[in-house]
Amino acid sequence: MVKLGVVGVGTVGVSVIKILEENKDIISARAGKEIKVVKGIAKNLSKDRGVSTPITDNYKDVTEDKDIDIVVELMGGVEEPKEVVESALKNGKSVVTANKALLAYHRYELEDLSGDNALAYEASVAGGIPIIKSLRDGLSANHIESIKGIINGTCNYMLTKMTNEGVDFDEILKEAQDLGYAEADPTFDIGGFDAAHKLLILASIAYGIDAKPEDILIDGIEEITSEDINFAKEFGYAVKHLGIAKKVGDKVSLRVHAALVPKGEMIAKVDGVMNGVSVIGDKVGETMYYGPGAGGDATASAVISDIIDIVRGNKTAPMLGFKKSLERGLTLMAKDEIESEYYIRLLVKDETGVLSDLTSVFAKHQISIGTVLQKERGESANLFLSTHMAKEKDLMAALNEIESLGSVEDKPVMIRIER
Amino acid sequence: MVKLGVVGVGTVGVSVIKILEENKDIISARAGKEIKVVKGIAKNLSKDRGVSTPITDNYKDVTEDKDIDIVVELMGGVEEPKEVVESALKNGKSVVTANKALLAYHRYELEDLSGDNALAYEASVAGGIPIIKSLRDGLSANHIESIKGIINGTCNYMLTKMTNEGVDFDEILKEAQDLGYAEADPTFDIGGFDAAHKLLILASIAYGIDAKPEDILIDGIEEITSEDINFAKEFGYAVKHLGIAKKVGDKVSLRVHAALVPKGEMIAKVDGVMNGVSVIGDKVGETMYYGPGAGGDATASAVISDIIDIVRGNKTAPMLGFKKSLERGLTLMAKDEIESEYYIRLLVKDETGVLSDLTSVFAKHQISIGTVLQKERGESANLFLSTHMAKEKDLMAALNEIESLGSVEDKPVMIRIER
Repeated sequence: MVKLGVVGVGTVGVSVIKILEENKDIISARAGKEIKVVKGIAKNLSKDRGVSTPITDNYKDVTEDKDIDIVVELMGGVEEPKEVVESALKNGKSVVTANKALLAYHRYELEDLSGDNALAYEASVAGGIPIIKSLRDGLSANHIESIKGIINGTCNYMLTKMTNEGVDFDEILKEAQDLGYAEADPTFDIGGFDAAHKLLILASIAYGIDAKPEDILIDGIEEITSEDINFAKEFGYAVKHLGIAKKVGDKVSLRVHAALVPKGEMIAKVDGVMNGVSVIGDKVGETMYYGPGAGGDATASAVISDIIDIVRGNKTAPMLGFKKSLERGLTLMAKDEIESEYYIRLLVKDETGVLSDLTSVFAKHQISIGTVLQKERGESANLFLSTHMAKEKDLMAALNEIESLGSVEDKPVMIRIER
Repeated sequence: MVKLGVVGVGTVGVSVIKILEENKDIISARAGKEIKVVKGIAKNLSKDRGVSTPITDNYKDVTEDKDIDIVVELMGGVEEPKEVVESALKNGKSVVTANKALLAYHRYELEDLSGDNALAYEASVAGGIPIIKSLRDGLSANHIESIKGIINGTCNYMLTKMTNEGVDFDEILKEAQDLGYAEADPTFDIGGFDAAHKLLILASIAYGIDAKPEDILIDGIEEITSEDINFAKEFGYAVKHLGIAKKVGDKVSLRVHAALVPKGEMIAKVDGVMNGVSVIGDKVGETMYYGPGAGGDATASAVISDIIDIVRGNKTAPMLGFKKSLERGLTLMAKDEIESEYYIRLLVKDETGVLSDLTSVFAKHQISIGTVLQKERGESANLFLSTHMAKEKDLMAALNEIESLGSVEDKPVMIRIER
């Protein structure tokens, strides 16, 4: 029998314990051995979790227990889990973690430390979708050209609702909070930080890029309105919040932001709380992976798949996909250098000369305009523009200048276009 | 350096050789070693394949060559490749195959024979999509409730064209043949046999079911007309050709046929030559895998991913996903016992009493009718019916009886409804 210790017995931890019990027959048939959680670690020892697993509050009770084969780390945060994972690895144990924040900051240190022990993390990105194994093992013959992922269910739920029901951001946020799809403090999700952690993990596997959240462009969905979504619909786009990794020469651009995506693309069809990750490989072309990105059982499904891999004797190393670094290493593209097409919404005074003022600012910054649509709105007008490919820094400079024009009545809203 | 011998140097074989060369840097970074095809085996030695690999015409030149580490089997057929794979395994080599027909008939024998050698076959189902690894390793914590796969690109291309352009079967078939999406003799694809081979492989991984093509229900798309597709559209369905595996109690129903699928489902959104496989696990819920199901480079991408797995030292056993068989084994449901909803199209005389005659036949066979739609067509009428859940044998008996009614002018057309 393989013995597990689970550090962090919250929703996912309880699901792991229960599924290993409920699906014991098929799991031991697949793994070749019985697998059981013999100990849990939690802070609150008085809480009834509906499981019979003995629970203590000192993680060393599992990481230093000679009887325990695999440590499953399901805590929140970064520094404390790091201590737990390090302790487990140093004690010669295999580790399974679902902790994206930990990996966003410390994945390369932990890979080095893991040595011959498995350190598996399928559940850290896109919940129940086996995207780590697919990208690392299934697409390993390819140079990855791009990854576009809907990897935050809260954002996708809210954008889908805004699209289908025409309701505004604040109303949907309240509803998402009531349904448990958004936290009381939703910043981590709707600000794009959760997606950024996941993107960094995917980017390591695809490109061997060691970047941290603060190195990359991270935008949320807070400024998106029904007007933007209606414009998108009208011009054949869906609005999606994406984590994007893209190879451009020997640079990799990494960014998290909302984007207008052509409706016909598979990723545009991923709705509600579901996640989807589209990967383009130079040889295979596009593949897409779809499924639930969160939830106790779906996340536990991924955690247990890692446990079964380890019990089967499949060492999951190279943890991040590379046995040795690439000869020609790729480097992170500076945020300013990222190129994109842009959609821009401006509230302007409805008077002559305004459009001419605006277009001259864009021209000055080498930004070429595609579509222009004007809609009256009382004494003002909403101007909707789309640009051709432009550099982030030029676009930002142009928007700053435009914001200070007397005829512009509100902060311009910008959404990138991805196709 | 890891040395490969490729048996069968056709489109996929040439792609394998070329990709290992072109993507050498990233492949050796991921695998930890250089990988090279050192010998090819082909029947026609005079053909120029555009590769410099030495080619001979005796497979034993690779299976018995002590210098060769991995044998890649990319031939057509069943018996000859079986001989090659057996010879390679007996000589202690790891084997990678893309041969679905071979596995549809001999996967359990070959699993037994493989012992401690890897026998990998990612490319045998859905081309470049890593569905084997996802199902076997990524979803291993789950009882699989169902698999619904668009796993034949020819069928999906034709049905998509018929749907979008309203063109008829024969015209599209000719076009698909001209484009190389359909063979000169298209029976193997459009008759459902290719999809059946793939379904059997997936069913083994999901359920441990040892069935052969002749044991399961296999239908093609030959009888589908624009009228059926229009009915489907009108009632919110897409027509897709599916391989379906479904667990019902301790039985598994396996079947390949066209089906009306609700438009909102992800699998209904998989268009053109692309493949998609939706898998429902009891814990994870639905995940879906999308990508190119054929083509030299896409298939080679999957073949090479298996090679890299082997070189990394990840033994891919248990080949079919189970280290030991399930205590409570599942068995194949008899074709007759399969239950489904059905769509039925009947060309009938436009006269009184016809509907009453028909409905009494259905009632006699315990088939309850849902929707009825009648469209005049000269002196006849097209009747479109949908049924509630009914047993295959009852439905077939009813259709046989209906065909012999004087008021029915043509063989009834039936398409199953899957939701």
